[in-house]
Amino acid sequence: MLHTSEALQQLIEEFSQLPGIGRKSAQRLALHLLKQPREDVVRMARTLVNMKDRIRYCSVCWNITEEDPCAVCASPKRDRSMICVVEEPNDVIAVEKTNDFTGLYHVLGGALSPLDGVGPEDLKVRELLGRSANDVAEVILALNPNVEGEATTIYLTKLLKPLGVKVTRIARGLPVGGDLEFADEATLSRALEGRVVL
Amino acid sequence: MLHTSEALQQLIEEFSQLPGIGRKSAQRLALHLLKQPREDVVRMARTLVNMKDRIRYCSVCWNITEEDPCAVCASPKRDRSMICVVEEPNDVIAVEKTNDFTGLYHVLGGALSPLDGVGPEDLKVRELLGRSANDVAEVILALNPNVEGEATTIYLTKLLKPLGVKVTRIARGLPVGGDLEFADEATLSRALEGRVVL
Repeated sequence: MLHTSEALQQLIEEFSQLPGIGRKSAQRLALHLLKQPREDVVRMARTLVNMKDRIRYCSVCWNITEEDPCAVCASPKRDRSMICVVEEPNDVIAVEKTNDFTGLYHVLGGALSPLDGVGPEDLKVRELLGRSANDVAEVILALNPNVEGEATTIYLTKLLKPLGVKVTRIARGLPVGGDLEFADEATLSRALEGRVVL
Repeated sequence: MLHTSEALQQLIEEFSQLPGIGRKSAQRLALHLLKQPREDVVRMARTLVNMKDRIRYCSVCWNITEEDPCAVCASPKRDRSMICVVEEPNDVIAVEKTNDFTGLYHVLGGALSPLDGVGPEDLKVRELLGRSANDVAEVILALNPNVEGEATTIYLTKLLKPLGVKVTRIARGLPVGGDLEFADEATLSRALEGRVVL
């Protein structure tokens, strides 16, 4: 392009590869950074590489960590008899924010999705089975409430039950602050199905 | 935070400083990059610093460029008697995409905004007046159709007219593909005001 710079185009290209960032947003981000002081841009570049170099996966729960085993797995305060199974590291952050769970985690690294070519061997399923056999009383499946999450929940339940471990999954229902009138049929039907005696 | 990494938090912090990127998007971007191969992340970091090091401002039109003067200002094919004044470098890209303008540009670097502390001395106004005095037949003001853009248009018109140069501004009206029924009053009123004899 005659009216712009190749170095800028490269950066726009890099940014538009990121999830949820289109061509226009990438352009806005690149031009924003162009206006920032050089040291800020250098710091961002360093933070990027630093993140990549320092972060590993916990060899117990497969969450991201800088120390192996991770702080949760290493903590003596956590209840070792409960494992909460999630898809991704950000799901651990979400559950931790509730302050309601004191057990350990297991990060699968995704959910079963034959269309995307994700099978059981791409997830940390074998590792979960290995952990669940040892002194674990309950495995809580906290996967996303979509087709892939449901399929993975069913699959894992079939593998875990024979180990004699209690398998539960988090409730589906109306979100707090939600409106019954605007709830979709699937959510409302799950909410009815999961009704609780008062 | 117990359940995540400091290096990751730093990157999320950096990303959430960017315009249009909230905390949740920043988290998603960081976790996406964590999954990418190390060389991809290093390349992105390099592209960032490279962009910052190679890009300068054209000393004629103040657009971003790698060579000074920029390709537009240096091109013998461009009509030197017309200057299109825009706020930011991305506006130059937008105008160039129309393939309808063959003159030169002048990038102000923003618009007058007393509330944000942006005065004429923060914009390339003096530079525009200097250029407009020399053999320029027409200055086209192509600023954003908002309060700041309008104020800047009025301000620049007052300064440019005494130099004997023709000052025009791009039309306001209904966007192509738009719907009269859904046009806001301000746009429709400008469209009526700017009606053209057929």
